[in-house]
Amino acid sequence: MGRHTFLSLLLALLTPGAAIPVPPAVRALNNLHLSTGFTSHPSIVMEYSIHYIQQKLFLSALAGHLHSCIILLSHQKAALVDHFGFNTDKTFNQRYLIANKHWKKDGGSILFYTGNEGDIIWFCNNTGFMWDVAEELKAMLVFAEHRYYGKSLPFGSNSFKDSRHLNFLTSEQALADFAELIKYLKRTIPGAENQPVIALGGSYGGMLAAWFRMKFPHLVVGALAASAPIWQFDDIVPCGVFMEIVTTDYRKSGPNCSECIRRSWDAINRIAGNGTGLPWLSETLHLCTPLKNTQDVQSLKDWISETWINLAMVDYPYESNFLQPLPAWPIKVVCQYLKDPSVSDPQLLQNIFQALNVYYNYTGQARCLNMSETSTSSLGSLGWSYQACTEMVMPVCTNGINDMFEPHSWDLEEFSDYCFRQWGVRPRPSWITTLYGGKNISSHTNIIFSNGDLDPWSGGGVTKDITDTLVAIIIPEGAHHLDLRANNAFDPTTVLLARSMEVRYMKQWIRDFYASLRKKY
Amino acid sequence: MGRHTFLSLLLALLTPGAAIPVPPAVRALNNLHLSTGFTSHPSIVMEYSIHYIQQKLFLSALAGHLHSCIILLSHQKAALVDHFGFNTDKTFNQRYLIANKHWKKDGGSILFYTGNEGDIIWFCNNTGFMWDVAEELKAMLVFAEHRYYGKSLPFGSNSFKDSRHLNFLTSEQALADFAELIKYLKRTIPGAENQPVIALGGSYGGMLAAWFRMKFPHLVVGALAASAPIWQFDDIVPCGVFMEIVTTDYRKSGPNCSECIRRSWDAINRIAGNGTGLPWLSETLHLCTPLKNTQDVQSLKDWISETWINLAMVDYPYESNFLQPLPAWPIKVVCQYLKDPSVSDPQLLQNIFQALNVYYNYTGQARCLNMSETSTSSLGSLGWSYQACTEMVMPVCTNGINDMFEPHSWDLEEFSDYCFRQWGVRPRPSWITTLYGGKNISSHTNIIFSNGDLDPWSGGGVTKDITDTLVAIIIPEGAHHLDLRANNAFDPTTVLLARSMEVRYMKQWIRDFYASLRKKY
Repeated sequence: MGRHTFLSLLLALLTPGAAIPVPPAVRALNNLHLSTGFTSHPSIVMEYSIHYIQQKLFLSALAGHLHSCIILLSHQKAALVDHFGFNTDKTFNQRYLIANKHWKKDGGSILFYTGNEGDIIWFCNNTGFMWDVAEELKAMLVFAEHRYYGKSLPFGSNSFKDSRHLNFLTSEQALADFAELIKYLKRTIPGAENQPVIALGGSYGGMLAAWFRMKFPHLVVGALAASAPIWQFDDIVPCGVFMEIVTTDYRKSGPNCSECIRRSWDAINRIAGNGTGLPWLSETLHLCTPLKNTQDVQSLKDWISETWINLAMVDYPYESNFLQPLPAWPIKVVCQYLKDPSVSDPQLLQNIFQALNVYYNYTGQARCLNMSETSTSSLGSLGWSYQACTEMVMPVCTNGINDMFEPHSWDLEEFSDYCFRQWGVRPRPSWITTLYGGKNISSHTNIIFSNGDLDPWSGGGVTKDITDTLVAIIIPEGAHHLDLRANNAFDPTTVLLARSMEVRYMKQWIRDFYASLRKKY
Repeated sequence: MGRHTFLSLLLALLTPGAAIPVPPAVRALNNLHLSTGFTSHPSIVMEYSIHYIQQKLFLSALAGHLHSCIILLSHQKAALVDHFGFNTDKTFNQRYLIANKHWKKDGGSILFYTGNEGDIIWFCNNTGFMWDVAEELKAMLVFAEHRYYGKSLPFGSNSFKDSRHLNFLTSEQALADFAELIKYLKRTIPGAENQPVIALGGSYGGMLAAWFRMKFPHLVVGALAASAPIWQFDDIVPCGVFMEIVTTDYRKSGPNCSECIRRSWDAINRIAGNGTGLPWLSETLHLCTPLKNTQDVQSLKDWISETWINLAMVDYPYESNFLQPLPAWPIKVVCQYLKDPSVSDPQLLQNIFQALNVYYNYTGQARCLNMSETSTSSLGSLGWSYQACTEMVMPVCTNGINDMFEPHSWDLEEFSDYCFRQWGVRPRPSWITTLYGGKNISSHTNIIFSNGDLDPWSGGGVTKDITDTLVAIIIPEGAHHLDLRANNAFDPTTVLLARSMEVRYMKQWIRDFYASLRKKY
């Protein structure tokens, strides 16, 4: 099977961070190049100071920084590659970031970002919420990188070599890393020992934050799980819900917008069926690499689908740069080009190009559109492809009726075969539910599940309170973990409200922690 | 290093089930031979019906059985060897027992014994409590065997071959087995799906029951953790407490009893130092294998120490056969021979022999005392030795002042070196605390921790209520998980009270489960 020939396969490989377009074993992990333009604080110049230290933790604050993202960048001393077996004692360096500008030893707290499938610096830069609340919570900020992503590669450049090297890439191992890291920080940072730790994360990182509180409640007093689709597994939610939400975003962002997209697939098929269709399509869509055959046409449709999905995730109310540099409310901008579904096929495709161009060329720098790139290289596509092929089996499907995509059913068997060919492993689709409880999680406490109605991942999220302490916060105008982003003048009131509720819960957890500490002594 | 040269090493290998005397890699796992004499129901003739089935679950009840222990003995369909990695999909057959005589599909429950370090049939036979309460709770009984014990060997006869084969012997894998088994039973037994499951276990099995509730609260509504020393790790409790409790048992069971034992060590040393000391000791103690050198003398003292420990664990109020056939209150019987610490060394050692003979020869069948056997072969000494060398690092020490033993400090380094030589692994002494929370477990719910004051493992147990739903039950006259044994006419009132409280809590959990189920629909 060639490069993501089937939408269903593409969908199966979706990461909550972004659609992962590149097939495994093709592209090596890109190095991260930071740009000062990549910021969630549009009004603040961010200055970085990056340190690499091994084995030892320095906490000397660096003076003169404006709201610096990174005060300290460090490696966990000897993180075990395998927490769940004893045949190997091999360790690796796990990267994490610390910022302690507002941290108070007296009555302070520790906000711990449970890193997800990408470079931790990128998540740090896109989690302004933690920076915004640090002073109020007297908090030390810790951003822990997830193993097999960023610089935290257990086997260096061999980490993705085969299923033997990948065997330690699981959510359980990642949670164990976080647990050991918290114990290490508490042991080595004077004043940290008797402080409450709160887990925070977005997307897969939000799942990890929630699961971390479920499995290690002795280490974190609570968790903020933003846009965490913990129910997008097994048959807990219908597999169609994800793409239905994507479709709704377009339907609501402009008249006939979703209908234009729905019709575009057949238009592509018809044009591709003509003798001169492929060169015409390649030219009209300004593709960097011309289409050559039917398989390329499928890839084209997959790539366009991914683009619509990504736009739905990052439909933020202000100019931003999460997956790509984008204008405010980018779907509205896209939909300005997609108003009339009754135009001719060539006209419709010309309009589709204009719409795509919003996503791929907002800066105006692109000379052509590259089908092999749909989002930031800070996300680790290799690692996620493996995780999707093992634990993170999140069924997604389309029917073309409730959504604007071509119909594709969820085919576990096909997916399993693909995974076996790619990685030599087969998914265990029910394991996450067995391990983390699925819908039956009411015995846990102190988890905030926040979801934005615009975010397709909200379909697999917790959107109703489960108990008094397992609470859902809805952000009607919110896309993917908007609440974790820095305060912005264009933020809708609902996200401000969400953040203030989140802070209120976190303060309550911190108060409860200190109250029970006082009771102890 | 020869056979358990140092008491500290012996102590490190103690299993909550019984002291494990045999060094690893020497003795293969014995086959289990069931005897109708091995029963916790002295007044009831037990009849077994043993089935082996693979892949499929039969629930046909066998008629005409009197309180049968085993109605069905089955194998879990394809239990994964490694739940926490995807490099292998290898499976093994996990054994479990089912008894459904009193089970009701309407309003019933499932009592799930979380098997520990031994043959599950032996645990089944020694957990009469579950049988006694089955009717009242309309309960199906399930006894799940722990991997690497009994017949549940992931690699058959190679299971203990090396650290590679042993790599999957951890508490986490065992809990995952239990989780998968419960899901399998609920899926395949009509009527089981919407029933509450309660985890029960004693000793290490009690730890597993508690940890199972902590980590998988979506699968079990509560846990009865009997004599579970979940705090005998790291430095949570002083390492001396275990042997202090052993000593107290002897001090309270007869005047000067513990003092006689305290003096016996020097007496042995003095006699062994004489030219004819070794043959004299061998003959006086009726040893099957004569002592040959100084190392054997250390082994002798270790063996005697183990015997005193084992007696403390099984100091039951009635004739029983858990580790060995024994009279009621065996320590009292032992202490009848140990009244005068001021006698000569030879006389003291002759008395020690009489005392040992109570433990090793209550049936009068033994022609000599065998230093290589201290308890039932139903316990898996190889497996536990590995577990003690990896996760289950339970520090035990003596000082000869607060206890009646020769002083031995806890030496992690020495122990680690021993483990490396024996198994090619090194212990991670803090991992259990990191994973399961140590003393910081108050966010969990619905766990009963029961402990007997006579039981040396109670020193590492939870003996005070932590919250309203994490409760401690103390049985002043109880030895090791006496409450899990069948009702007996000679039971002290305190254990009857403990059992009735346990039933009350379990009924409450079952009521709560059905109430929340009704609320759902």
